[in-house]
Amino acid sequence: MLSKNKIKLIQSLNRKKGRDESGLFLVEGNKMVEEALRSDFIIDTLVCTPGFLDLHPQIRLKVSEIIEADSETIQKASLLQNPQDSLALIRQPLDSKFDMNTLNDLVLALDFIQDPGNLGTILRIADWFGIRTVICSENTVDVFNPKVIQASMGAIFRVNTRHTNLESFLSDATENQIPVFGTFLEGKDIYKEKLHRNGIIILGNEGNGISDAVTKFVTHKLFIPSFSLAENKPESLNVAIAAAICCSEFRRR
Amino acid sequence: MLSKNKIKLIQSLNRKKGRDESGLFLVEGNKMVEEALRSDFIIDTLVCTPGFLDLHPQIRLKVSEIIEADSETIQKASLLQNPQDSLALIRQPLDSKFDMNTLNDLVLALDFIQDPGNLGTILRIADWFGIRTVICSENTVDVFNPKVIQASMGAIFRVNTRHTNLESFLSDATENQIPVFGTFLEGKDIYKEKLHRNGIIILGNEGNGISDAVTKFVTHKLFIPSFSLAENKPESLNVAIAAAICCSEFRRR
Repeated sequence: MLSKNKIKLIQSLNRKKGRDESGLFLVEGNKMVEEALRSDFIIDTLVCTPGFLDLHPQIRLKVSEIIEADSETIQKASLLQNPQDSLALIRQPLDSKFDMNTLNDLVLALDFIQDPGNLGTILRIADWFGIRTVICSENTVDVFNPKVIQASMGAIFRVNTRHTNLESFLSDATENQIPVFGTFLEGKDIYKEKLHRNGIIILGNEGNGISDAVTKFVTHKLFIPSFSLAENKPESLNVAIAAAICCSEFRRR
Repeated sequence: MLSKNKIKLIQSLNRKKGRDESGLFLVEGNKMVEEALRSDFIIDTLVCTPGFLDLHPQIRLKVSEIIEADSETIQKASLLQNPQDSLALIRQPLDSKFDMNTLNDLVLALDFIQDPGNLGTILRIADWFGIRTVICSENTVDVFNPKVIQASMGAIFRVNTRHTNLESFLSDATENQIPVFGTFLEGKDIYKEKLHRNGIIILGNEGNGISDAVTKFVTHKLFIPSFSLAENKPESLNVAIAAAICCSEFRRR
């Protein structure tokens, strides 16, 4: 039976304050809950229909608390317009260790990404391209925001994320001579430049791009050229689209 | 003065029926209205604050009807949560001529794209990569849906679009021996395949990919490889992300 208090807890996870206080985040939808079950994340509470439980007998081994509820009750608790047969309250993982010293892979670093859909899509791109770490500036939208989780399509369970002071992080990178990449209007053609196997790729704010404070750490300014022949050329690409093109270029070589 | 009837007309443009009946579509926000003013599109009515009009004296030459209104009145008419100083009612262009016979460039063809944000983003990608034509299947979301327009960031004014029977269109392509590309799980590595300078790139539905009826016209099955080493590999990329990577690969060579 889904108590009023539990419904209140579930809905509090829509706000950062609620997530910080409980240390939990919310995952909705059968596919996403199945991804959570396959992951190493700790599922505190699963709310689902008896039918969902029958389909996933292994759940009882993985979940501390299972609450059976009918669809109408799940609808009441859900933040989605069209909820499905399950939702899960999941423990936020501890920040994984990150050693700049031995960085031999690519990392994404996000400088004030505001839109949860963009952040979720960027996590999904990182996941696809085997980039295991995404560093978020303190003013980037919270990775455990439910809209980020839904847009990540399960990538949240496979990519390590951390909110941190981006300038200290990049200062540490500079000391360790790690290459730092970012896209700028005055950068060099990404299709022609030599790209490294390791390094940090910075993605900037939707409206303003990479901030001045972060730009000073960039060692390699890149540019994704437009092929438009129109008189009024397009000014920019969406940040997730730019992320996809950068990751594709770095990885394919 | 913005009449009740005009407000009703503006709000009717949120629905396909309203757009079909009036032949108009709605553009909101100063930046988008400025893009419209720079384009060849016919602006039927502009609703804006006196301040906006002062900043853009050339407007009087371009617009049939100008209605000055204060921000509160614009707010009442607007479909946006945070409207700006202007909105415009724009005439839907006639379908431009398209000659399969002389196709010497790339074209995108959309097979049942449902999400307006995805369609708008795909138009923006086409614009960036200089792809001038985007063909939409009849069941693809309407390009003049206000959410598509906003997500296109002005690309709607530079890219030719058309809703048409996709199977007839592709059958015509087959007769003219135009290469037709699409991404499939069993396709060949896009980074290694020879890609053409002309042809049609098909993008499939968000949940189900390219439909069987359309698949039979595909002459080159491609695949964007994942670089993930995780045990639970990601299953797919968002369709706009896949579009970006395809366009980038076709154009850079």
